[in-house]
Amino acid sequence: MVATRTAVAVVGAGPAGLTVANLLRRAGIPCVLLETGSRAFIEQRPRAGFIEEWAVRGLEQRGLGEQLVAKAPRHEAFEFRFAGRRHPFRYGDVTGQRHFVYPQQLLVTDLVAQYTDAGGEAVFEVSDVRLHDLTSDSPAVTFRTAAGEHRIECDFVAGCDGARGVTQGYLPPETTVKAHHDYGIGWLALLAEAPPSADGVLFGIHPRGFGAHMARTPAVTRFYLQTAAGETEADWPDERVWTELKARLAVPDGPITEGKLIEKRILDMHNYVVEPMSHGRLHLAGESAHLVAPIAAKGMNLALHDAFLLAEAYEAHYAGDPTRLAGYSDACLPLVWQYQEFSQWLSDIFHHTAATGGNPFQARIAEARMRRLLGSPAAAAAFAELYIGKNADL
Amino acid sequence: MVATRTAVAVVGAGPAGLTVANLLRRAGIPCVLLETGSRAFIEQRPRAGFIEEWAVRGLEQRGLGEQLVAKAPRHEAFEFRFAGRRHPFRYGDVTGQRHFVYPQQLLVTDLVAQYTDAGGEAVFEVSDVRLHDLTSDSPAVTFRTAAGEHRIECDFVAGCDGARGVTQGYLPPETTVKAHHDYGIGWLALLAEAPPSADGVLFGIHPRGFGAHMARTPAVTRFYLQTAAGETEADWPDERVWTELKARLAVPDGPITEGKLIEKRILDMHNYVVEPMSHGRLHLAGESAHLVAPIAAKGMNLALHDAFLLAEAYEAHYAGDPTRLAGYSDACLPLVWQYQEFSQWLSDIFHHTAATGGNPFQARIAEARMRRLLGSPAAAAAFAELYIGKNADL
Repeated sequence: MVATRTAVAVVGAGPAGLTVANLLRRAGIPCVLLETGSRAFIEQRPRAGFIEEWAVRGLEQRGLGEQLVAKAPRHEAFEFRFAGRRHPFRYGDVTGQRHFVYPQQLLVTDLVAQYTDAGGEAVFEVSDVRLHDLTSDSPAVTFRTAAGEHRIECDFVAGCDGARGVTQGYLPPETTVKAHHDYGIGWLALLAEAPPSADGVLFGIHPRGFGAHMARTPAVTRFYLQTAAGETEADWPDERVWTELKARLAVPDGPITEGKLIEKRILDMHNYVVEPMSHGRLHLAGESAHLVAPIAAKGMNLALHDAFLLAEAYEAHYAGDPTRLAGYSDACLPLVWQYQEFSQWLSDIFHHTAATGGNPFQARIAEARMRRLLGSPAAAAAFAELYIGKNADL
Repeated sequence: MVATRTAVAVVGAGPAGLTVANLLRRAGIPCVLLETGSRAFIEQRPRAGFIEEWAVRGLEQRGLGEQLVAKAPRHEAFEFRFAGRRHPFRYGDVTGQRHFVYPQQLLVTDLVAQYTDAGGEAVFEVSDVRLHDLTSDSPAVTFRTAAGEHRIECDFVAGCDGARGVTQGYLPPETTVKAHHDYGIGWLALLAEAPPSADGVLFGIHPRGFGAHMARTPAVTRFYLQTAAGETEADWPDERVWTELKARLAVPDGPITEGKLIEKRILDMHNYVVEPMSHGRLHLAGESAHLVAPIAAKGMNLALHDAFLLAEAYEAHYAGDPTRLAGYSDACLPLVWQYQEFSQWLSDIFHHTAATGGNPFQARIAEARMRRLLGSPAAAAAFAELYIGKNADL
């Protein structure tokens, strides 16, 4: 057993953990970053890709956004396709803000490089991570590597190891509320070797169910299809995929281009939030604390929001102000719930028009909601503000 | 059997039927108004009371709003009471529009007087109303009075006899969609001999369930309490009523004043819409076509919207343009669905915070929605526009 000591043990090298670790290092607060995957694995793992402008500016102001700002394409519009017609929605015009399209693995690659280049301590491929004495003044993390067993004594543990990580399990059930929502449907995530069929994002609102198109590279396009609960990839042979993509997304002046399908994966569509996000010396950030289905691309943005607040709270603590850490969970949760609410509201538009297993009343409600976005400037402004997360950084 | 002939037989003397009949009479189009109740009964029957400014102006422009505009108090704000605090919401400031508070029986009294004073033909206390030959060029309505059996040959039948009327039953099931939504809760409607506890409308958002207060007269106040599905008036003795009203509505600087309860009635909270609203020579208007639970006080406003459109369509028909009648249902339904959507959205705020039978995830979603209304000017503007129905008269 090798024993060391640090100030903050950061568990998990996703966007939340890497951001916290980089900010601690820059503030001169000792930390160790632990990750179960290899560095090569996390630098290639595809996940989210839409970063809201406030989060980009937050990274930039903290010295972490240079590559992102230099390289990421901007998005400021999408298109609803509905009843055989195109309905563009230019949220950038309404808010003055944009999405930066930067696949998560690129951000992770940047953040790992910045952290390790600056001498930050990271341990990859750890296993059997356990937390100890979280309600004492001196908690610890134990884990195993190929070299043997390790123990890190610390002041705090940042639990940034995602929805399948171990740190969430250390919240005491008697004082933690874990609120769940299951959408009762799935999304089939697809990658096709096909040029994009349109400039950016298309949302198909259709009685056969939701479909989406996201331009990615000149040769590869991402698509999504709403699926029934319980369906698996085997229920979706290529022919059915293309039939449904065309039915849900193509319009007379906007066809869908076919290509070889190189990824086909069913995504679970469910959400949860744990409250509070802290227990003793453990503070959760990102998907260890709250999962939001990819409906509105909010997950990575919330992870960055948590990470900024957590790093600032640690800095305040070491500067002699313990109130920020005590208030960390309360500071994070309002935006978490705003984004959960928005994702659910948008889900109703996307998924309730589906006739199969659907409800005719809710299908009309969904249609009314979408028509209001397209017809009322006030409704469009309120929607755009949430879609791009304007004012999220208040 | 007495047989007569007219242009339009209007079935039902509620706000929709009376408005249609008055407008036909003013346009010189012969009509007969049939009503199952007595004139005294409909002039006293309490129902809705909040008329949106566009509807008031619509009545006024058509020569039907003089008494209403002269007498009705205006409302332009309400107050959420939540977490022990008062949260005023001044929608009049945002939209420049107000509600006119005018109990339905007063509007009905005005409209009956205008119609009959001007020589309009109305038959009260009819029974056994039946419609005939609706898809022919010459439909008919038969009914019975104390004087015997009657038959009216006509060009059109306006079905304005409400949710419990007979005209809806003449829509053919094979081409009509009746979409339903049940909120799964009830409202206990209360009248108390008590002075108002605040100037206007209070909405109590509380883990024990929704509560509302509506100032009515200096001596009488209306209250509502959310109840569980299946509860009856017998489940709500006076002591329980006051305990819950105080728990859900009182705040330290805003107590609730008790009084003798003079009305206690459980309201069903469900909605429906029939599509299309027309069949042959029959056109429905108001609650015969669509019911909306009183959550957002939209029912009478939609009835007036239908009535304006239907009267204009009849006028166009007799001026040689049949397209307005052919498009009547399509012209009404967008606002019907906007108001259904809004009522459901507002219901989620009002009712989902209830812990009993509730869902902790949805309770937080409801809270996030309300906090956004209070915190985001863009969200407040979009909400206010719908709450007062601004742009409804487009």
